[in-house]
Amino acid sequence: MAEPIIECVANCSEGRNAETIHALAEAIRTVKGASLLDRHVDVDHHRCVLSFAGSPDAVAQAAFDLVKTSTRLIDLNQHSGQHPRIGATDVLPFIPLEGSTMSQCVDLAKKVGKRVGDELGIPVFLYEEASDQSHRKRLEDIRRGGLPRLASRMESDLSWKPDFGPASPHPTAGVMVIGARHPLIAYNILLNTHDLTIAQAIAKKIRTSNGGLPAVKALGMELKTKGAVQVSMNLTNFRQTPLHVVFETVKAEAAQRGVSIVNSELVGLIPQEAVNQAAAHDLKWDSLNSWHILETRLRRCAEG
Amino acid sequence: MAEPIIECVANCSEGRNAETIHALAEAIRTVKGASLLDRHVDVDHHRCVLSFAGSPDAVAQAAFDLVKTSTRLIDLNQHSGQHPRIGATDVLPFIPLEGSTMSQCVDLAKKVGKRVGDELGIPVFLYEEASDQSHRKRLEDIRRGGLPRLASRMESDLSWKPDFGPASPHPTAGVMVIGARHPLIAYNILLNTHDLTIAQAIAKKIRTSNGGLPAVKALGMELKTKGAVQVSMNLTNFRQTPLHVVFETVKAEAAQRGVSIVNSELVGLIPQEAVNQAAAHDLKWDSLNSWHILETRLRRCAEG
Repeated sequence: MAEPIIECVANCSEGRNAETIHALAEAIRTVKGASLLDRHVDVDHHRCVLSFAGSPDAVAQAAFDLVKTSTRLIDLNQHSGQHPRIGATDVLPFIPLEGSTMSQCVDLAKKVGKRVGDELGIPVFLYEEASDQSHRKRLEDIRRGGLPRLASRMESDLSWKPDFGPASPHPTAGVMVIGARHPLIAYNILLNTHDLTIAQAIAKKIRTSNGGLPAVKALGMELKTKGAVQVSMNLTNFRQTPLHVVFETVKAEAAQRGVSIVNSELVGLIPQEAVNQAAAHDLKWDSLNSWHILETRLRRCAEG
Repeated sequence: MAEPIIECVANCSEGRNAETIHALAEAIRTVKGASLLDRHVDVDHHRCVLSFAGSPDAVAQAAFDLVKTSTRLIDLNQHSGQHPRIGATDVLPFIPLEGSTMSQCVDLAKKVGKRVGDELGIPVFLYEEASDQSHRKRLEDIRRGGLPRLASRMESDLSWKPDFGPASPHPTAGVMVIGARHPLIAYNILLNTHDLTIAQAIAKKIRTSNGGLPAVKALGMELKTKGAVQVSMNLTNFRQTPLHVVFETVKAEAAQRGVSIVNSELVGLIPQEAVNQAAAHDLKWDSLNSWHILETRLRRCAEG
């Protein structure tokens, strides 16, 4: 059997200093068995997102080394950027990939969280699937009001005692949010119109928070360079709401407003399962599963 | 860089003797670096199809060992079955998969063909992409009239001299056809009708030989157990005619005849690229490529 593979998507509060970003990437790359998959740097947000994956042990070690490096190099007191943040390594979710389960990711989040709390002295809040406290399961709830407000909740309210580490923020690294979640797909659909209100109306109609599709966050956005507008989405659980359901819902909503779809695009990476799911739907292919796919069968056979 | 991976789909003239089939499979399995992916046995056709894959050297060795074993165990003189055949190991195509090219498969076909001719004394005809002789590029043309007719062409016509090996058939193993081709997708579409003539009319309309879609073979078939009919197809080059084009063409032809599609199904394996291509089409996803797919990126990064 092949080892389970887990992904980690680390959000760090550094998007400007190339040396620091390089050091963060190296902290991951030097761990045997961990692969750096993607590096996204945003100067305005003053933030970088490092995606890496590997066996549970390798990913846990790479995650810890990354937090240690960012604690050494990033001082939140010197930080300003558009993106809300409460820590040097702000958010650290673990995500199940090939052969791994959500419960393994929850275990990993707790293991890394405990090390970060004990060895680096940073308060850690567990979130999403790793948390069972409903008032602090969501990232937005933990981050509400920024670090100063969170610090005062930690001081005055027992229900805001961190899951690991000290009771008050680290002097330079702040706090950390560590957890487990499903793969997130960032997916945009471009509409054949200049009218931003149409993209906004469709986004409002389909997003979960307005009673639309489950596990969908959506915004209407203007793309000045393309002279068009798009519905920009995060699909937080593609097994619950698959890509083709999102595509067809947006298509129908657009058609009602006399608008067609130009194309769709992905930002970042997508799990193979989500692509297979879309093809199987469109070809009415009831029985398609990964065992039918030559390369998947080849890898499984090669692994014995 | 990862080694290129090549697939081989061996068609052997044995579908009844379990011991022989087991020995054929073992000949492949015992070669390090070759993986047996699939084994399909047909009692009526008296034939088995063994799919295996691995690095070029491993696949070449496994293919040769398989031919040697089938030469030892199968006597064509004792053989009867519905399927046309001219050899103990009847047909042996090499197929490019991950990281490999058609030209590597052509080289491999010639290398294995030469060994089979020289060491086992079996005449070898190259076919498809491995042949540059138009009158014997297609399997049907080589196999026309069965082994007796082919033997007399070999005897009397210089343009039927084999590419490798002796000028007349091996006494028990006959001749062999070795070559290189694109991955073949066996794909069926089930129609919501009992009327076989509708499936037959659609098959006739879409198949290449009647001026339909390129690289498509199609037949109308009755499925008595399901009380329905299907268009049963072989797609011989999915890059030329993708799955979604086939699906939509059949759908439109069926609609013209007042019939809808129940579902579609795969027989055997499909390359991941063909599935991705279908999803990308249906989601108007112009820019999708395998680099966007998390698992693919992970493997490439892990391989350095």
